[in-house]
This record gives sequence, C-alpha cells and structure tokens, in this order.
Amino acid sequence: MTTARTSALRQRLGITLPVFQAPMAGVQDHRLAVAVSEAGGLGALPAAMLTLEQLGNELKALRAATTRPFNVNFFCHVPPQPDAARDAAWRDALAPFYAEAGIDRATIPAGAGRMPFSAEALATIEPFAPPVISFHFGLPSAELLARVKRLGAFVLSSATTVDEGLWLQAQGVDAVIAQGLEAGGHRGHFLDTDPATALTRQMGSFALLPQLVAALKVPVIAAGGIADADGVAAALALGAAAVQIGTAYLLCDEATTTPIHRAALTSEAARHTALTTLFTGRPARGIVNRVMRELGPLNPAAPAFPLATAAIAPLRAWAERQGSGDFSPLWSGQNAGGCRTVPAGELTRSLAARLR
Amino acid sequence: MTTARTSALRQRLGITLPVFQAPMAGVQDHRLAVAVSEAGGLGALPAAMLTLEQLGNELKALRAATTRPFNVNFFCHVPPQPDAARDAAWRDALAPFYAEAGIDRATIPAGAGRMPFSAEALATIEPFAPPVISFHFGLPSAELLARVKRLGAFVLSSATTVDEGLWLQAQGVDAVIAQGLEAGGHRGHFLDTDPATALTRQMGSFALLPQLVAALKVPVIAAGGIADADGVAAALALGAAAVQIGTAYLLCDEATTTPIHRAALTSEAARHTALTTLFTGRPARGIVNRVMRELGPLNPAAPAFPLATAAIAPLRAWAERQGSGDFSPLWSGQNAGGCRTVPAGELTRSLAARLR
Repeated sequence: MTTARTSALRQRLGITLPVFQAPMAGVQDHRLAVAVSEAGGLGALPAAMLTLEQLGNELKALRAATTRPFNVNFFCHVPPQPDAARDAAWRDALAPFYAEAGIDRATIPAGAGRMPFSAEALATIEPFAPPVISFHFGLPSAELLARVKRLGAFVLSSATTVDEGLWLQAQGVDAVIAQGLEAGGHRGHFLDTDPATALTRQMGSFALLPQLVAALKVPVIAAGGIADADGVAAALALGAAAVQIGTAYLLCDEATTTPIHRAALTSEAARHTALTTLFTGRPARGIVNRVMRELGPLNPAAPAFPLATAAIAPLRAWAERQGSGDFSPLWSGQNAGGCRTVPAGELTRSLAARLR
Repeated sequence: MTTARTSALRQRLGITLPVFQAPMAGVQDHRLAVAVSEAGGLGALPAAMLTLEQLGNELKALRAATTRPFNVNFFCHVPPQPDAARDAAWRDALAPFYAEAGIDRATIPAGAGRMPFSAEALATIEPFAPPVISFHFGLPSAELLARVKRLGAFVLSSATTVDEGLWLQAQGVDAVIAQGLEAGGHRGHFLDTDPATALTRQMGSFALLPQLVAALKVPVIAAGGIADADGVAAALALGAAAVQIGTAYLLCDEATTTPIHRAALTSEAARHTALTTLFTGRPARGIVNRVMRELGPLNPAAPAFPLATAAIAPLRAWAERQGSGDFSPLWSGQNAGGCRTVPAGELTRSLAARLR
C-alpha cells in the first residue's frame, strides 16, 4: 500500500512513517511531538496558544529530546478590530450562565485568545531551524513567507476546498493538507469566510482528498476522520502522500488533554460532534456539550476569532472546577473510535501497521 | 483488495462486482438499472416519483431486459398533514420569483411530490419478486416490513449515524448503507429529524463507515464521495462489503439526467454543493444555484417533506424553458469528478478495476 508518493515525501522529510501528528493547541506540548517523531512519524508543536517565551522554551525542550524532524504550527489569522458592541452582545448571550455561576461580568478581562504568526515568532523559532513549518487559516504575508522559506523549512498549510489548494500551491507551499470535514478542531478555510456559504463549501475527506490530489502537483496529506491503520490505508488508496492524525492521539500518555476532555472522548457523547464558533469565534469541531446545545453551536452572537474566548473562559473554569465539561471546548473529530490510552510512539506505529 | 466481506455479500446477492448503483429518483428509469446489473453490479430502480402504474411498467421492462439481480428503492416517510399557513408562507418566500416569471400563484396546484412505500406498492412489486428492496428515511411499518421479508427480498436501508445503523439492524435489515455526508440527494436520517441537531449528526464517510462496520454484525455498504476505482478500494479498506455510487452515473448514456443538470455536473459550479430543503422540504445535496443562494439553502420557510416541491415546480419549468437550472434540483454529491459520459456498464467495470 505504500505508494511512490509516500516514499518521495518520507525521503524528502527524513521520516520513516507517513504519519503526521496534527498540531493541537491546548492539549499538547513538545512531549507528544517528540514521541511521534521518535517513532518515525512527524511530531508537531502547536504555537497558537504559547507566548514567545513559552514557544522558545518548548522548542528548546523538543530539540533536546530528539534529533528527528518535527513540525511547528502557527495560526495566521489577522487579529480583528475590537468591537465593543459585539463583545457586549456576546456577554449578553452568556449572561444567564454568568448568573448561574455567580460570575460578575464586569470582572472578566478581555484577551486575544490565539497568537498569529509574526516576525517576532519567526525570530523566536529561527535558532531552532524547524524542518517543517505549517500554517492554518491560509498563509502569512508574502514577505514573512519568503523569510520562512529562506530558513529551509518545508512549508505546509491546510486546504478545505480545491480553490484553497490551488491558491496555496501558487504561493509556494511544499505540500497541502486536505482537511476533510470530519476533522476535529478549527476548520482551516480562508478564501471564503462568509458564514452564509463558507461551511457549505467544506467537504468530507472522501470527496476533498481525491479532488486535491487530481488538481495539485504538490503532495497532498489527508486529514479528517482517519483513526486507525485501515483509515491510513484508505487515505493512501485515495492518493494521499501521508496522513495527518489528531483525535486518535488525544488519550496518549504524552498529551496534556484534561481528564474531563479524556472522559468525554471515551463516552457515548463523542458520537455527536458539531462545528461551533462559541469557544473562539471560528468554526471548530468538538463534542456537543451544554453550552453548544443551549446557545446553538453556531450562535451568531459569538464575536470574530479569536475574541469569543475571553468571555467564555471563566465559565469553563467554573464548570471544570466541578468536574464538568459543559463550557469546555471538547475538540474531537467525527471518529474518536481510534483514541487509545497508549504511548504516542506505539499509536504511531500501529497507525502504519498496514503499510509495506 | 477484495475482502472476505465482499465475497460473502456478492455470493448472497448473486452479483459479480461489489458495486451498487444508487437509486436516483428523477434522473433514471429501468435502463440504468439494467445496464449496471448486466455488467455484474447491482442496478437500482427508484420508485419514489413513480405512480403505481409506472412502477409496474418499469419493473416489467426491467425484468424483460435482464435476469440479473436488481434493487427497487422506496422512500418510507409519513406524509405530513397539509398546513395551509405554512404552505402560504412558502409561497410568500417564492413570491418575488413568481413575479419575475409572470406566474400567478393562485394557479399552482398542490401536489404530494414523493410517494412513500405502501401496501399498494408492495402488491405492485410482488409479481416481480425483486431480489433486493431498499428503503430511505428508515423503514416501513413492522407489518409491511414483515411482508417484504416474506417475499424473500434482501432488505437494505440507509444509516447516517451509528444509532440509526443499530436500529436498522435490530429491525432485521440484511445490510446497512453507510450514507456519508458527501452523498448527493436526500439525507436518509430518520431518528433525529430536529433541524437544530439532525444535520450536526451527519458524518463524512471516513468517520461513519468504520464506526458502522465496528458496531454492526450485518454487512455495511459505503456511500458518499466514492467516484472512481481508488474510492472503491478506499471504502473496502475501511471495511465496506460493497459500495453504492450515484453521482458518477449521472452522465451515463442510460441516465435520464436533463441537459441542464448534465451541464452543471461538468462545470465549475459542481465544486460547490450544499444540503438544501428548498426542493422537497428535506435536506438533500445539490449543486448551489440561484434559488439556493438567494433564499439560503436551508430556509426555514420550506414546508415539511415532500410539500416544498409543488410550489417551486412552475419556477423550475419556467427557468428550464430558458435553458437555466436556477430553480432545478441539481442533485450531486461532493465528488462529481468521477462523472463520465460512457455506458453505465463500462463505468461499473471501471469502478471495480482495482479489485482482485
């Protein structure tokens, strides 16, 4: 089942297994990346929720723990203008929950929530010469991207439509991640972000992957719904050069997934996920919980990404103190059946078990 | 790649290729079914838009043209109570289009749109002893289902969630179709039909298929996004015993797909499909066109299935007379890339090209 496509990409990256660990901000640090890279796959460090100092420390620890290739991942959204009216409307929508939790909304600090890629981030990672740098929500400015490429990094970004894949290829990415609609976490769409149409453009992996493979010259990495060795074999049959897997790693020993999140992933609740804007402002797939049910997962009151985060954070903290995930982003793809409570290296090898 | 699963199912059904042609009401008659069955797959005759007399005539023609196994497909919705207020609201939503087309809304007849399975339908098909009978939107009453099974037919129905698959298995179906979100035409969901949650339960094939395979004892047939031999190989890798393919057949010589629909399928427009309730009242996937853009594909004014059909029919007829598909249901899955203008037998054989 190992195709010429996978061989070429593995050689280029210096990895032995065509298994990329999906960067998952908030549920992992360098330890998961190290475990996957040491097993022969491509580990990933998500930078979106780290300060520059934390990012530098994580890279130092990662580099100290492995000499294998790894991926550093950045969001590259343009931070929105603060909008006091919209923020107030969002806090109004959350007001009944604040009342229930005894939270004084006047005391909730504003906060950015997620850090986009920047010249400062580039300067932070430069000494560590990451072999692979990946982006979500498109790409940084042409000038910043040129500087990334001068580092010698292999550059990846996610496409959710054929048009996005063609656009990324034209900007010079080295490979494109086909992010099928099954995937957990944030949708990476960036060409059409109109709420009325953007989500209707999102495709399941069975449709998106072969269309990107047919349309692009660069390798395509399959993501979304892949949970075990059969899924890996199926993705390669559809033309993928490698797979990127997130959800299946969430129960691994090296992930920092909270106990509440872990419990949700192994419960019946994991059968029902939805795209929701409630936690950050951008559609992201997570297990349906109380706040998603009561406000509707795509409630239009949620402000622009990433400004929804700050107002919901104290509710999350309040509920989690009581052992509840009612207000937590329980990120998961549509196929949590592959989650296993094992070391990530073992999972990585088992994912590649059907490859020759 | 041919697994023990596919062999057992092929033997049971007496077919040589594990390729089921998806029944597609409105775009095919017995001729497409005959061509697929004669090529060694399982052809299908959709009954939902036929009168009982037409159904009998189609079965007569089908039986005369092939001795191979075939499938007769029925919708099994419960027709809704007519609701004059809701129907008026729907016609209000369409009023600007009526004005543009010069259509007097008082002259538009009401109409049922789609016929559910019934004792009369059973009596009509009984003399033809269909080897396979499939249902969409669940199953008919237990009493009717028992009579279907006494005919000796192999019974199929579609599941869009694990719960639906378990329910169908418990009712005694012989196999379950895993209808991935990529699929064209009507979603088959039936356990949760609440507009607020039903669509969030729908999964891409990469997630739905392996979960149904893991949960069920009966064979699972993969549907949704499968467009070519690679897709068939991928579906079997994920545990499917067979595949069901619709969209790829829409350009075949034997399909009755209109020229307007054929042109849309081969245009750039086919890259953007959406689930829409505008044409029938139930969510169904079609190529985004003018009425979907202007009303929104899931406009809540659309009445209960299948009552939306009658009010939009004259707009469709008016637009089609001018060569436009602006008001036509341009059913398509998310992967129209496999559509080929060839005889259906040739397409069936090419879909099985990677199987040993």
